Formats: sequence, C-alpha cells, structure tokens
Amino acid sequence: MRYFTDTDMGLDIGLVNLAVESAFSDHGKGLVQMPPKVYVTLPEGDFRTMPAYLPSLSIAGVKVVNVHPGNPAKGLPTVMALTIILDIATGKPVAVINATRLTDMRTGAAGAVAAKYLSPKKEIVLGVVGTGKQAEAQVTAISRELKIRELKVWSRNPDHVRKFADRFMEYPCTSGSLEKICDCDVLVTTTPSRSPIVKSEWIHDGTHINAIGADAPGKEELDPAILKRAQVFVDDTAQALHSGEINVPVTKGIFRETDIAGTLGEVVIGKKKRADAGSITVFDSTGLAIQDLAIAHIAMRHGEKIDLPFP
Amino acid sequence: MRYFTDTDMGLDIGLVNLAVESAFSDHGKGLVQMPPKVYVTLPEGDFRTMPAYLPSLSIAGVKVVNVHPGNPAKGLPTVMALTIILDIATGKPVAVINATRLTDMRTGAAGAVAAKYLSPKKEIVLGVVGTGKQAEAQVTAISRELKIRELKVWSRNPDHVRKFADRFMEYPCTSGSLEKICDCDVLVTTTPSRSPIVKSEWIHDGTHINAIGADAPGKEELDPAILKRAQVFVDDTAQALHSGEINVPVTKGIFRETDIAGTLGEVVIGKKKRADAGSITVFDSTGLAIQDLAIAHIAMRHGEKIDLPFP
Repeated sequence: MRYFTDTDMGLDIGLVNLAVESAFSDHGKGLVQMPPKVYVTLPEGDFRTMPAYLPSLSIAGVKVVNVHPGNPAKGLPTVMALTIILDIATGKPVAVINATRLTDMRTGAAGAVAAKYLSPKKEIVLGVVGTGKQAEAQVTAISRELKIRELKVWSRNPDHVRKFADRFMEYPCTSGSLEKICDCDVLVTTTPSRSPIVKSEWIHDGTHINAIGADAPGKEELDPAILKRAQVFVDDTAQALHSGEINVPVTKGIFRETDIAGTLGEVVIGKKKRADAGSITVFDSTGLAIQDLAIAHIAMRHGEKIDLPFP
Repeated sequence: MRYFTDTDMGLDIGLVNLAVESAFSDHGKGLVQMPPKVYVTLPEGDFRTMPAYLPSLSIAGVKVVNVHPGNPAKGLPTVMALTIILDIATGKPVAVINATRLTDMRTGAAGAVAAKYLSPKKEIVLGVVGTGKQAEAQVTAISRELKIRELKVWSRNPDHVRKFADRFMEYPCTSGSLEKICDCDVLVTTTPSRSPIVKSEWIHDGTHINAIGADAPGKEELDPAILKRAQVFVDDTAQALHSGEINVPVTKGIFRETDIAGTLGEVVIGKKKRADAGSITVFDSTGLAIQDLAIAHIAMRHGEKIDLPFP
C-alpha cells in the first residue's frame, strides 16, 4: 500500500480534463457503479463519503472529504480529502491519496467538460463569481478547452479580485458589479451562498453557467427563475436533487426532477445537447466519486509516494 | 496524520467489549450518526463503506472493507479493512488504521455484548458453527463475559475443528454433527452460507444465537422457522433488513420488520430484554460503523504508528 502525499504536482490539466470527460462518458452509458454520496454532520461542518467503481479504468475506491467553513481561521483548508484505492481483483487497499488539491482539479475538469460541450462559442468571455481555489481551478481547466478572450471577476472583497487577476495575467481581466460580470458567454459561480445572488435579468440568452458552489442541502447561488429559463444539466440526478443548485428550488416545488434536461454524461455521449445558440444552459455540479477515481488514476502514476505495510 | 499498522497487538479484549457495549448504548439512545453501509460490487467480491460519528468519544470516520471469498487461494484474507479517522472540529484526517483484525475483534465484541445480555445463563455450553477468524474472535470475546463450561465446534472440515480446539485448550472441547453442536446454551454461526444450515428442530428453548455470518443480501444460516420462534434482536434495523440474517426471509415475506424484537442498543440500555428463560433469542449481526469507531479509539492509543504528511 502506498501513501501519495503531493499528487497534484506536475499533473497535466489537459490529461485530467480528458480523464474526467471519459468518466462522464462511462456514466452516460451506465457503465459505472456509484452510490450517491453519504453525508455525516459534525459540530462545525460535515464530511462526505464517496465510493465508486470505474470498470473502464479498473479502479475502485472511496473519497472521504470534509467541509468546515471555519477552517481558514484555524489555518486549515475548508475542504480536505483522502482517497482510498482498492485492488479490484482482491479488494486490498493499494493506495491512500491526499486528495485535497485533486478535489479542486477534478471539479475544475468537470466544469471544463461542461463548458466544452455546452458553451455557445469556442472563444469566450468568462465570468467568475468568487475567487477561491475552486474559481481558480475552473479558469485553469476551462482555458484548456476554450479560448478565453476576457476574464471578468467578482468578489465581495476587491483585494481578492486583484490577487485573482494577478494569477491570470495572460487574460484581459476586468471587475465590476455582479450584474456586469454576468454579462459573459460562460459564467462560473463558486460561492458557498445559501440564497440566490445571481439574478435572472442579468443573464442574457445564450449564456452557459457552471453552478459549482451548491454542494449540500440548503445551498443555492442562482435565482430559480434562471433554472426555469434554462436547460439544466446535472452531473448526477440523485445527488443534484439532494444537494446541487436545484436542491432548494426542488424542495420548494419550484423545480421538478422532470425539469432536468439531462446529465453531463448524456451530453458527452451525444444523447443530449444545447438546444440552440440562444438557449441558456446550466451545469449543476455536485461532484462525483468517479471524477475522483479518474484523477486518482493519473495521480498514482505521478505523485510522490511513501510505502506502507499492509496487511 | 498517522498510519496505524498493527493495531490489534496487545489490545485488552475486555476493554474492547466495554467500548463496543458503550457504542451500542449510544446507538440505543439515538446519540450516534450512522448512515447504512453502502455496497459496491466488484468482479470477484464487493466493498462496503461505513461512515459514522460517535459524539460520546468525539470520534468520526469511515471504514472501507472488502469481502472477496476467493482471496485465501491468493494468499490474502477474504476481508481486509482500512479506517480513516477525522478530527471532528476541522474534518482533517488524523489517522489511517489497518482495521483487518480490528474488524474481527469488534464483531466478536458485539457477539459478546449480545451473549452477556441475552444468554439464559452465566455459565454456558458454547456451540460454534464454522472455525474461521470470526469464530475465534467470538469465542475469545464471549469468554470475557460468560464462563464457558464446554465448547462444541462444527466445521465441514474435521482438520479445521482440531486446529480450532487446539487454540482453545482451556475449555473441554467436543465435535460432532451439526445437530449435536446446536444442543447448547449459546450458539454462534459464522459461515458464509447462502442457504439455511441450522434446522429449527435442533434448537431447544432457552438458546441464544449469535447469527454472525449473514452480512450481505442473499446470505442466511438459520432456518427461518427459528426466527419465527425467536425474539430477534438486530444491531441496526436498516442494515439487518438489507443484509442481515433476516434479509432473505424478509425478501420472501416470511419475516417482517415488525417481527423484530428490538436492537442490541435497546437491550443494552434496558429498554428491551429476553422475555423469559425459555425464550429463544437471536442476535442478527451485520456490523456497525460505530463498532469500528469504538475500537479505533482504543487502537489509536496502542498501535504502532507511522507519521505521514498531511495536508
């Protein structure tokens, strides 16, 4: 058994995007095993357990990931993760992987796959709401699939906007009101909001939105009126209903399961697609265990490792 | 973060029994968080993911455990396990524990707790069906709670019976037909059987049975007629219905959820009990994540450890 300590170093983002796209393709074809993630609530946060088996890569395992919003004040990341990989022939644990940064990367990759298939254009103005690690991962991953003409960034904290822009100096970068940032081709929302912050009147026809922030019951970033105007694609239907961008509108009866246009997997395999150039499309990302397996498969070939005795 | 390599060495069985009893007490009082275990099927076996939070010990985590019946032919145990422990305040992983042998021990402890509360006598004739690691763990753990007057052992393989008896030379040990072994005070069944092997007419009134073997859909060891005669206590109702001794009879409509007499936790806190000396009692053990946390709590104070960098 090996412990992989620093698995994101030197990973090829294009390769990660491709691996995650392939996992979504398998998901669209019904070729994966992936029970919905399981939540356990702790006093100051929660943790999620995400098992899966991806036969096409002969890989199986479980990611365990926490969300503790108060961690930054303690000098720790909000989200930390470990992935356990099992040998599929014997069930023996073969790897324990530090998956904290991999979690950002594989979420970025899902956003890139969604934007690749659902963006109305190949050259885009990219609007980013929020400036955390997830926002950074989205821009990095999307930049491999689409040409970013301009980056528009919004944060409550202007200082965060400046620092974010400094990390992406290769793109013309502007800031301004949230309304102004929403005037773009592809919009990425990455906040932990528990009430809608993006208004429907700010979103023009033809926009694609990656709704990344909502990943637990009670979280939402978009005015439900956007969802009613849009084709909403989810990563996984059960997870999206429980904890995705649609979870609050579904609970309120504003949005129904039958309003979902399809899954990203179905989009990747060509079964579902953007209706026309004027459609609004939304990708509701909750994060899938098969994304974690896909990136683990790459990380285990590149990461620094420590041998551990087992059994 | 630490990796615990060899956590069963030197653990006090009495202490383990007590910790597991305390976890069942918390379970009986509704003071734990424990979603039902999640199964993923692999080509030659399966793995189960078991998250939980046990507030009384301030411990939270996930056990990942496989079952691969073909492993012994490959020189590996059928069952192997890792437990991840998270800091409850921050969600940070603090330990990865080799939990293969701990899994046997904590299952033994649950059997010991059940026998302590449900056995008709304090001095017992103990019947054991099967001679694997789980049978050994049951005898070891039960011996701390009850006085074993005589050990009766059954296996398809007489050689296995001899080896088993050699491990417990402190007790008068006999073998014979399965019917003869069933004539005892406390019977423990530990086989991977998928059809009943213990007949109802072999079980006399007043017997307590620990049904340990059935831990997945389709598995059963006891004639369902025994369940109909008995007070059936489960470790966890949802898990027992899905994968315990009662799962096949429930699927066939022979046994219903309302036929369950209670949980072991309710027995431990005194809410439920053996009706009278002539009752047959059955403890249907599927294995709970809180048992894994309870033993992990002890193991982390005693096991050999390796420091690992995280994050």
